Amino acid sequence: MLEFNEYLNIIEDHLEDYFPAETEKNKVILDSMKYSLRAGGKRLRPVLTLSACDYAGGDIEDALPYACAMEYIHTYSLIHDDLPAMDDDELRRGRPSNHMVFGPGMATLAGDGLLNLAFETMLNDMASHAGDHEALKGRVMAAKALAYGSGVSGMVGGQAVDIENEKYERNEDTLKFIDRGKTSALIEAAVKAGLYVAGADDETMADLTYYAEKIGVAFQIADDILNVTSTEEEMGKPVGDDEEDDKLTYVELYGLDKSREKLAELTEQASQRVNEDFFRSLALKLEKRTH
Amino acid sequence: MLEFNEYLNIIEDHLEDYFPAETEKNKVILDSMKYSLRAGGKRLRPVLTLSACDYAGGDIEDALPYACAMEYIHTYSLIHDDLPAMDDDELRRGRPSNHMVFGPGMATLAGDGLLNLAFETMLNDMASHAGDHEALKGRVMAAKALAYGSGVSGMVGGQAVDIENEKYERNEDTLKFIDRGKTSALIEAAVKAGLYVAGADDETMADLTYYAEKIGVAFQIADDILNVTSTEEEMGKPVGDDEEDDKLTYVELYGLDKSREKLAELTEQASQRVNEDFFRSLALKLEKRTH
Repeated sequence: MLEFNEYLNIIEDHLEDYFPAETEKNKVILDSMKYSLRAGGKRLRPVLTLSACDYAGGDIEDALPYACAMEYIHTYSLIHDDLPAMDDDELRRGRPSNHMVFGPGMATLAGDGLLNLAFETMLNDMASHAGDHEALKGRVMAAKALAYGSGVSGMVGGQAVDIENEKYERNEDTLKFIDRGKTSALIEAAVKAGLYVAGADDETMADLTYYAEKIGVAFQIADDILNVTSTEEEMGKPVGDDEEDDKLTYVELYGLDKSREKLAELTEQASQRVNEDFFRSLALKLEKRTH
Repeated sequence: MLEFNEYLNIIEDHLEDYFPAETEKNKVILDSMKYSLRAGGKRLRPVLTLSACDYAGGDIEDALPYACAMEYIHTYSLIHDDLPAMDDDELRRGRPSNHMVFGPGMATLAGDGLLNLAFETMLNDMASHAGDHEALKGRVMAAKALAYGSGVSGMVGGQAVDIENEKYERNEDTLKFIDRGKTSALIEAAVKAGLYVAGADDETMADLTYYAEKIGVAFQIADDILNVTSTEEEMGKPVGDDEEDDKLTYVELYGLDKSREKLAELTEQASQRVNEDFFRSLALKLEKRTH
């Protein structure tokens, strides 16, 4: 397998390969979509898609449209999340958020455009493999995993509870539902997509999905901790706003110490069924991250 | 072939078949999605998908997930279009628009949820036909046609130019781009989706796509005319707001008489290559509509 940065570089090199060509009329919407896509970020989800495919013996190149679709979906969710109608955040990754530059109307459309482009990218790839029944089946399952993770039963559902969490009891059950939707659902989908494209067997699928579940929750706990302990400079976005926005977090429910313990425990569990340096060190890197 | 209302009834009976089961946590977002879906409307696009499939000799039932996906996409676009960040319309089909009932944050998510559900519905259908290579290929092409029509190269692209039309010359070229995106692109996609599911031959595909192109433009011209000549009661939404919002319309560019002529001409052209009562009377019905 490759190093994290090697997968990352492949993503960065191809992230805009699936965009339509620029014209006079689509320039503004494409600029708005690319502005947020180019803002960087960890590219964790697409790297997981490529590395999962690689781990299962697939061809990385085959997984690329699904990896990029993953990042389009993640990026759209951040654009809509930052909107005045949602979290109303003016800063994202150290830069003005999308609607601060393009206005909330265009930002809404840029998010819609990225979500749509994710599926368009995957469907174009399926169509170009239409003649190969086995390849087509794996790709359908990959796209289906993404659709499930990003929709009402995953990310959108989690966000809906998150923005109106005052309607639900502030307990672990609610927190788990929100976090699964906001983070784990897409991280699981990213891994599954790579595995499906590679045509992985059931055991590999179960083991790496277990890994994804654990690091998904760990990722969100680390986020909650950083929102309390980090600085705006390190995070590239306002810190401490979880409390201000009345968000339900691990830190609120369990306190800092217990949250750190839980984070370490999940990181330890994550690698129990996957004997591969790449995934073990990625879990550790996510545990120790400072932004 | 069936009558319009017979296709319509099939749609109405199955429109929520592809929604996930309701739980305590997803109730609010599902309510918000269903609120707009149940608001009625002509169901023109899903009826076109079913009737196109039927016309090409396919099984209507096979086209149902794609027809419903079509209506989810159309409905999401109306929810986002009405948002304060976009057209800021408080009324839709005679009822308060989604964000007036659920708030703009939930309305944003309800739109995202419907767009995602459209693709999830189609991908679930593909997965359940994974064993049948021919059936799978047609379904991939149907979903791809929808994705193209609803994205940056179709609907989202048209809306982006529409909300910032002051950046473009107020001429026929700009108007055509906006209208293709806002209306024709989805109407074309609806027809193509039904034909692909049915496995239609190239000639049928070309002829019925020609029909869709013509009624797509006719539909938008009729809309522009009604926005000037109709009443709020008939339309179920404010009239005259195109001028208020500085929208570029056929009526502005050509005047009422010329617009009516163009509408009649397109309606006439539409049926030139499709010798079938259903499609001819649908084109006439759309020409004469009062809302």
